[in-house]
Amino acid sequence: MNHLEIIKRKAVQIFSEEDLNKKINSGKKLTIKLGADPSRPNLHIGHSVVLRVLKHFQDMGHEVVFVVGDFTGMIGDPSGKNKTRPALTFEETRKSAKTYLEQASKILDKNKTRIAFNSEWLSKMSFKDVINLTSKYTVARLMERDDFKHRFENNLPLSMHELLYPLMQGYDSVELKADIEIGGTDQTFNLLVGRELQKDYGQESQVVMTFPLLVGLDGKEKMSKSLDNYIGLTDTPFEKFEKSMKIPDHVLRQYFELATDLPIEEIDHIMDGDIRQAHILFAKELIKMYDDEKDFEFAKIKYEHIAKGLIPENIDTMKISESMINICDLLVKVNFATSKSDAKRMIMGNGVKINGILINDINKTITIESETVVQFGKSKFIKVIS
Amino acid sequence: MNHLEIIKRKAVQIFSEEDLNKKINSGKKLTIKLGADPSRPNLHIGHSVVLRVLKHFQDMGHEVVFVVGDFTGMIGDPSGKNKTRPALTFEETRKSAKTYLEQASKILDKNKTRIAFNSEWLSKMSFKDVINLTSKYTVARLMERDDFKHRFENNLPLSMHELLYPLMQGYDSVELKADIEIGGTDQTFNLLVGRELQKDYGQESQVVMTFPLLVGLDGKEKMSKSLDNYIGLTDTPFEKFEKSMKIPDHVLRQYFELATDLPIEEIDHIMDGDIRQAHILFAKELIKMYDDEKDFEFAKIKYEHIAKGLIPENIDTMKISESMINICDLLVKVNFATSKSDAKRMIMGNGVKINGILINDINKTITIESETVVQFGKSKFIKVIS
Repeated sequence: MNHLEIIKRKAVQIFSEEDLNKKINSGKKLTIKLGADPSRPNLHIGHSVVLRVLKHFQDMGHEVVFVVGDFTGMIGDPSGKNKTRPALTFEETRKSAKTYLEQASKILDKNKTRIAFNSEWLSKMSFKDVINLTSKYTVARLMERDDFKHRFENNLPLSMHELLYPLMQGYDSVELKADIEIGGTDQTFNLLVGRELQKDYGQESQVVMTFPLLVGLDGKEKMSKSLDNYIGLTDTPFEKFEKSMKIPDHVLRQYFELATDLPIEEIDHIMDGDIRQAHILFAKELIKMYDDEKDFEFAKIKYEHIAKGLIPENIDTMKISESMINICDLLVKVNFATSKSDAKRMIMGNGVKINGILINDINKTITIESETVVQFGKSKFIKVIS
Repeated sequence: MNHLEIIKRKAVQIFSEEDLNKKINSGKKLTIKLGADPSRPNLHIGHSVVLRVLKHFQDMGHEVVFVVGDFTGMIGDPSGKNKTRPALTFEETRKSAKTYLEQASKILDKNKTRIAFNSEWLSKMSFKDVINLTSKYTVARLMERDDFKHRFENNLPLSMHELLYPLMQGYDSVELKADIEIGGTDQTFNLLVGRELQKDYGQESQVVMTFPLLVGLDGKEKMSKSLDNYIGLTDTPFEKFEKSMKIPDHVLRQYFELATDLPIEEIDHIMDGDIRQAHILFAKELIKMYDDEKDFEFAKIKYEHIAKGLIPENIDTMKISESMINICDLLVKVNFATSKSDAKRMIMGNGVKINGILINDINKTITIESETVVQFGKSKFIKVIS
């Protein structure tokens, strides 16, 4: 499997492919930049599209730099109009970045990943430096950005400081001497600012690569936490399975192509087969990548039990401290049994199931995987998490 | 003579007259701001229009602050495209400001005049402060400025940093807590930025007053040094006289109204009379204001002698150290006489004239006013300055 081929296959645009090939063929260790939003550290498989691309670059020997825009994050919205963008403290940005990196490490090689905070250089810039930076860009060029243009032409508020943001982000590339910057297609304009600014600052221009935005589970909007149409990297295997089954059929191929690295021929083969089976295989791939393959069967059985009405969908949840526990102790803990001997009687009477599977060994140790459903009789359920 | 009435009479626009009256009636000592260009310290009567207004404010007991835009002056043109705007050194800006203040003191009361350099506060601003400042202004509002709008709409280069300049100038008003800012009509946009920003920074808004731009001696363009269509405050009385005679008839009334404080009735009376006499009276006013009334007669005679062809226009000039000198010594000094006794003979022979006036007293002391023409016989001339 050729890493570069997979990367190119997933890309929407490359500025320019010639420059990319030149950089790759130079043999030098490249710096690959990705901008990270410090205010939303919960990653989902929409984010995984570019993260998987970064992993391929790492496998080719290059270094990944996440640039956390903590400088603007700490400023928040100076106009005070945007209540959804509160100013973050220094500690909050560091904590978010740590969470981000931890989650991204489900995909990336931590040793080849660096985090940079742009406040490190932007907070040191004086008004004179800002004038120098802004002198390198025309108003016309900035107003080409779709949302700026739209707001300007339609007399919607557009504050001067907003025009500075793409320049800051572009300047990050100058500071990092980035070789390649990747991002979603919605970032094309901003990424190109960096490419142009580097030239103005006498550097070799970064290659810009844009990748598709994964559509959410609603099949319409871009996947995002706020629209609750996402599959999170830290979702439980069961949640991944359940959500995978909800992916609209017409976008399932896109999910395979962008969120997995399966070869196209295999995707073709899967999509030619039974569509329900295709969803299950997507869930399997996801759980394999982010959890453990053995969690897959577990999630699948639970899903099917619920589907058959054997486990109701909404049941109480209890958090316990143990991750491994004897079945009798568990029954006492969840208050199904009044004592261990009571628990034993319940098990011997063939009344106890774990995730729909009958338990008949009173010495059995139960591993509290993500979500474990304890059942007694036909109607008594509790979900246990550890 | 009511100072405020004269000020209002000369103003083109006041934002707002109500606010102006309120400030004046508050009885407090007001801060009157005027922006000064540190790169062009040579003042002419075009500048005098607003300077005379400032003098009226001083006579009312208020304080004048010249704000020298040394911050941008020291940056120069960061794009490097504008060769006519070289970056100034710190020393150059201080020297220019000193010259500016000296010349302005021909009109103003030095004790009620303060010079402020905006680098004092702008150079201390961080990127964060700049974002805060720029967040208070919309792109649309800035693009209302005629030259920005024109360049943007006609795809002419307009760099981002140029949009920051009006905000800086406006911020100067915040820093100085200016009560009133005055300027030429070409500054209306920039002055209003200050008025608006002060409100955003929680201050009472400054009153903005704009004044006409005096047309140059060509009767067409705005008076400016670079177009050589100006009457300088430091021009010699003779130069002032000569240039006054060249003012196109159709703009002479404007010169009277803007560059002098003569009452309208007197201007009416003058303009109703002989037009040549009106020019002479304008010259007289100028020389009275900026030199000494007795220099006027002197300049007039010289002008008339030249007009009659009695003194040629282009003659050599010699600079001497004395400002008062005996006529015989003078003749020796300019090499017209070989000795004092030679000089005496020349005077006794009725051959020596000073500024066209026959000298027949060998003990006469000559005061070397700005330009003194020494003449021997019909064709020997030299101009002496001290």
